[in-house]
Amino acid sequence: MRDPRNIAVIGVTGYTGFELATLLLRHPEMKQSTFYVRETNGFHCLSQLFPQLRVRGEAPLRPLSLEAITSSGAGTAFLATPHEVSAELAPKLLDAGLRVIDLSGAFRFSSAETFTRWYKLPAPHAARLSEGVYGMPELYSDQIRTAKLLANPGCYSTSVILALRPLTEAGLLAPSQNVICDCKSGATGAGKDPRRDLHFVEVDENFRAYNLFSHRHTPEILEHAGVPESRLVFTTHLLPVARGILSTIYVSLSAQQTPESIEGIYRQYFAGKPFVRIWPAAKLPELQHVVNTNFCDIGFTLDADGKRLIIISCLDNLGKGAAGQAIQNLNLMLGIEEQTGLL
Amino acid sequence: MRDPRNIAVIGVTGYTGFELATLLLRHPEMKQSTFYVRETNGFHCLSQLFPQLRVRGEAPLRPLSLEAITSSGAGTAFLATPHEVSAELAPKLLDAGLRVIDLSGAFRFSSAETFTRWYKLPAPHAARLSEGVYGMPELYSDQIRTAKLLANPGCYSTSVILALRPLTEAGLLAPSQNVICDCKSGATGAGKDPRRDLHFVEVDENFRAYNLFSHRHTPEILEHAGVPESRLVFTTHLLPVARGILSTIYVSLSAQQTPESIEGIYRQYFAGKPFVRIWPAAKLPELQHVVNTNFCDIGFTLDADGKRLIIISCLDNLGKGAAGQAIQNLNLMLGIEEQTGLL
Amino acid sequence: MRDPRNIAVIGVTGYTGFELATLLLRHPEMKQSTFYVRETNGFHCLSQLFPQLRVRGEAPLRPLSLEAITSSGAGTAFLATPHEVSAELAPKLLDAGLRVIDLSGAFRFSSAETFTRWYKLPAPHAARLSEGVYGMPELYSDQIRTAKLLANPGCYSTSVILALRPLTEAGLLAPSQNVICDCKSGATGAGKDPRRDLHFVEVDENFRAYNLFSHRHTPEILEHAGVPESRLVFTTHLLPVARGILSTIYVSLSAQQTPESIEGIYRQYFAGKPFVRIWPAAKLPELQHVVNTNFCDIGFTLDADGKRLIIISCLDNLGKGAAGQAIQNLNLMLGIEEQTGLL
Amino acid sequence: MRDPRNIAVIGVTGYTGFELATLLLRHPEMKQSTFYVRETNGFHCLSQLFPQLRVRGEAPLRPLSLEAITSSGAGTAFLATPHEVSAELAPKLLDAGLRVIDLSGAFRFSSAETFTRWYKLPAPHAARLSEGVYGMPELYSDQIRTAKLLANPGCYSTSVILALRPLTEAGLLAPSQNVICDCKSGATGAGKDPRRDLHFVEVDENFRAYNLFSHRHTPEILEHAGVPESRLVFTTHLLPVARGILSTIYVSLSAQQTPESIEGIYRQYFAGKPFVRIWPAAKLPELQHVVNTNFCDIGFTLDADGKRLIIISCLDNLGKGAAGQAIQNLNLMLGIEEQTGLL
Repeated sequence: MRDPRNIAVIGVTGYTGFELATLLLRHPEMKQSTFYVRETNGFHCLSQLFPQLRVRGEAPLRPLSLEAITSSGAGTAFLATPHEVSAELAPKLLDAGLRVIDLSGAFRFSSAETFTRWYKLPAPHAARLSEGVYGMPELYSDQIRTAKLLANPGCYSTSVILALRPLTEAGLLAPSQNVICDCKSGATGAGKDPRRDLHFVEVDENFRAYNLFSHRHTPEILEHAGVPESRLVFTTHLLPVARGILSTIYVSLSAQQTPESIEGIYRQYFAGKPFVRIWPAAKLPELQHVVNTNFCDIGFTLDADGKRLIIISCLDNLGKGAAGQAIQNLNLMLGIEEQTGLL
Repeated sequence: MRDPRNIAVIGVTGYTGFELATLLLRHPEMKQSTFYVRETNGFHCLSQLFPQLRVRGEAPLRPLSLEAITSSGAGTAFLATPHEVSAELAPKLLDAGLRVIDLSGAFRFSSAETFTRWYKLPAPHAARLSEGVYGMPELYSDQIRTAKLLANPGCYSTSVILALRPLTEAGLLAPSQNVICDCKSGATGAGKDPRRDLHFVEVDENFRAYNLFSHRHTPEILEHAGVPESRLVFTTHLLPVARGILSTIYVSLSAQQTPESIEGIYRQYFAGKPFVRIWPAAKLPELQHVVNTNFCDIGFTLDADGKRLIIISCLDNLGKGAAGQAIQNLNLMLGIEEQTGLL
Repeated sequence: MRDPRNIAVIGVTGYTGFELATLLLRHPEMKQSTFYVRETNGFHCLSQLFPQLRVRGEAPLRPLSLEAITSSGAGTAFLATPHEVSAELAPKLLDAGLRVIDLSGAFRFSSAETFTRWYKLPAPHAARLSEGVYGMPELYSDQIRTAKLLANPGCYSTSVILALRPLTEAGLLAPSQNVICDCKSGATGAGKDPRRDLHFVEVDENFRAYNLFSHRHTPEILEHAGVPESRLVFTTHLLPVARGILSTIYVSLSAQQTPESIEGIYRQYFAGKPFVRIWPAAKLPELQHVVNTNFCDIGFTLDADGKRLIIISCLDNLGKGAAGQAIQNLNLMLGIEEQTGLL
Repeated sequence: MRDPRNIAVIGVTGYTGFELATLLLRHPEMKQSTFYVRETNGFHCLSQLFPQLRVRGEAPLRPLSLEAITSSGAGTAFLATPHEVSAELAPKLLDAGLRVIDLSGAFRFSSAETFTRWYKLPAPHAARLSEGVYGMPELYSDQIRTAKLLANPGCYSTSVILALRPLTEAGLLAPSQNVICDCKSGATGAGKDPRRDLHFVEVDENFRAYNLFSHRHTPEILEHAGVPESRLVFTTHLLPVARGILSTIYVSLSAQQTPESIEGIYRQYFAGKPFVRIWPAAKLPELQHVVNTNFCDIGFTLDADGKRLIIISCLDNLGKGAAGQAIQNLNLMLGIEEQTGLL
């Protein structure tokens, strides 16, 4: 009998995996968490790999083996693995009866063409793509509760979709103007593998744009924000900080608004959603307000003409942008309080 | 007899003043530089104020006194003072026969209304505003050579105007779409006075937008970039770095272009301009490429549709964005090589 | 009737006060916390002052008034105030029957002479100095449990005392050699008031020593580490990071040791102490291992001769170095689990 | 006929190589510089490799080939290569008649045993070790002027030796007390190769000690500072900054001194040495004072007892600690002004 509170975490060596481990170890409702890695290097508990976890929490570390996982009684698996690995592992875990929360991009799109276009890869898992539920609790909580395969959203995508969706649902965007999403992220978003362009000296006191018109989070935004491809411009930049995303989003409105009407639309849309905090008009959230939390903070400034709106959306790319949101999804899937272990 | 290579620098305690001092002290064509500050604290040479200048260069430090300056034989004055102080001092220095290079915003606009609207101040110097020459050498070198009162441009403005002007002169901007300038600056741009929001802990590992729709550099961009106010959106953000500005600029083109045609327009516009470096299509400059230099580096990416263009423009806010550009202007005013002392 | 779990926090605007608020708001055993500040600016709840606390926790904000506090039913008061203020307030709160946890240096010494020598101030509270219990739970848990007036230790002092005390108690220090404590701290340790030398640009990409031979934490180390003044050298440096202290401590041993014997001495001394983590010989803790925690991590390297020992001791200056340790002390004073609310 | 102002630079891809290139390209006395790298990737000029050098300076880039170098007319070669490569190349270049300035540790010791002990490598170049002249101009300018093989000192070693040598020559160190050198460096000192522990996220907001009792710069300090091995303790730490070393050095004096006497000893020792700046007693240099310069700044604080002295020595690890000092050595070898191209 599989117990959904018996958790297998696969791939814990990156920044997201570590964050996930930290959150799971202090989550009050988890019965057991076991961590699987490609190379254990002779270690058999998590704190041998991460000495900073000593005393804070402890869990077994195991060599990655599908058989070990499926025979362990685990009912839920987290995949903090590259998308190629997730594409291969998830179907097998699903077939064995586990529920899967995948933090990669492998199952975020129902269309194999979309995956192939943006990830520049064939989609060997094409037959299973339609099983993925896009795990943004503020939009899709019903589907998430019963999901077998949960595709945890991208970090940039989360910050942009939460900022735009209330406006597009309200029909507020001027039809002819572009929507510009100028996004900036800390370096944990780029992964932990040593790379020349992520050397301390190449990021410190520096700032740069990257992947213009080609970032893999684009199709998620197109699918869930309600902006057509011909009008979306989405750019990403690397900030010299460890954590956090701040997105500056520029929209033109179809009709004149007041700061109060805009604030009202956001407040109404996110009423009862504990992890989106709307700021009062003209007060703007900053990266520091959300780092090390699961919040997405949204603020805005409206031009005096009432037509040009700038939205500031920020979150922690490892929190609401990855591991935190994954835990929020887990809570929904378990039928427990959405905030459990996240405040 | 006033000697234009005998220089009076007024206000040297801020970051711009210090940068100016450093550049002047190593400039091969200067005969003498004297530094004037409100409070000398008993010091009488510059290195007592800035011990890091010892051995690198030396110059007298004097209490600020209009009489001392005008009787010193100085032919050129730099004002690295707040705009209120510049508005008061510049006319007196001009009347005494000095040429003035003002690094504040006091003389950047010919209209007192513009000054008052954006600086929220009356313009006591209204009668003299029309004397100011906007000191952007790549655009106005002829006027600069003969200027008596040089208004050195703002740092953000320089990065945006240099990126947009070639496009607007070529008539390339689609008439109905907004031009979005999403600009990010290091903390030296915010001045040296202690402020709670500039405490190390409030900037480090943080990132924030500020002064949306109200930044004082806006009217300079409107006047010199060729974009009408109704279509310009200009935002500023504070980066956790000491120096440098990177502006990400979004434009829609009136007709389809190729990367080659865009690169060609920029190269032609800046031919013979030593301090603007155009990057090959799809290669993007970063902050580190320009920090501690007088360059403005411009790169771009054109969408596959040939209509949506993103331009990256970066410079050092204390270099090409302030003190470096001021020296470049001085060189033109003296009739010497534009690059002297700047490479 | 005073309830010790009804808490009054006085002075919440600094970094320590904010950290304390964050810890108290999520502490599972607190009944009520009320925050008192000199100026409420019309705010009446904590999240108006700190918008990042919204949703995470809420508590009333009140203008500082001794009468309001003493009539509120509060049984415990935290003073996150400057030492002059603590010296004045603490006796009054004690007299009103509250237990007081003071985070300043006002009550850390039993001798008024010591206070006056190092703080360069008369000691108006001389008569009450002897009531203070030095709140280092690893050394003095018995006295802490019954303390009325708890003097929470300094951040540097905590890192140094925990590293040295096991060695001095074991009689291991060579009698003639100096003990060198070269300590480095992040900028939150210097307080939140705007100061020119704490401007982002003055700390970023910089590093400096300060207060050599005169730091106020010196007398705490002398009193509790077991090293005589003639042999202690204690220096402090400012790191370009927000949080954390790393102390590199150099001692000469009176007799040859092995890595195992040194590790054994530390493990034995801190057996059962949950917040001191001893690292295996020659593995060294780093700042990142302790930031945002209440741990003090201690590692060391012994020279091949077995006589020269270098100890690395690190902690979070706002955690184990201030607010975290204050909560640990509170837990002891309440007779509950030492770790409550701290893991 | 070899021209000593025709320069071959071998290995330009690291941080030191780039700094060397920057300094050589603006050096007024160089006739020609050619840069050799293992892989040119089809580039044939330096600015293709480093776009930030465009306009600032230009030089040919060539595939590394001993024959190309020796047949080029170059009279001086810089080796900015790993010590294994330098050990192999330097003898061949010397035999071909070039003068060699080696920035690695290969030729810093006359004894093969020393090299082998600290570098954990056999010394295939043992026969040539004695030809190396230790290139610290403040100590050995006469030997440097005529050197054929110049061993440019280590960065840490330079900061420590310059601080200690005046004291040891004056016989001021107490014979029984240890000399503690607690040194901190920015990340360029660790090289440019991607490494997990140099990833931005692993250095940012972090601080750590490394290589205790085993750093390769130790034997240089032993040989040139005048402190016996039994009394030297030298530790190194990684600062979250790009450039700069600050060493805090603790010595006990054999006889009571005054601040004036200490300052006098330093001033006298470095009289006429343009790149060592002595600070007035109790004023301390900081990293920012020396970054991007060729200075070593030395300050100190003497305890009230006149016996315990703390010295702060700082420099730029890429400047006076590497490339800058190499240029200073080149100037001496060419018989020109020591400061040429360095101010």
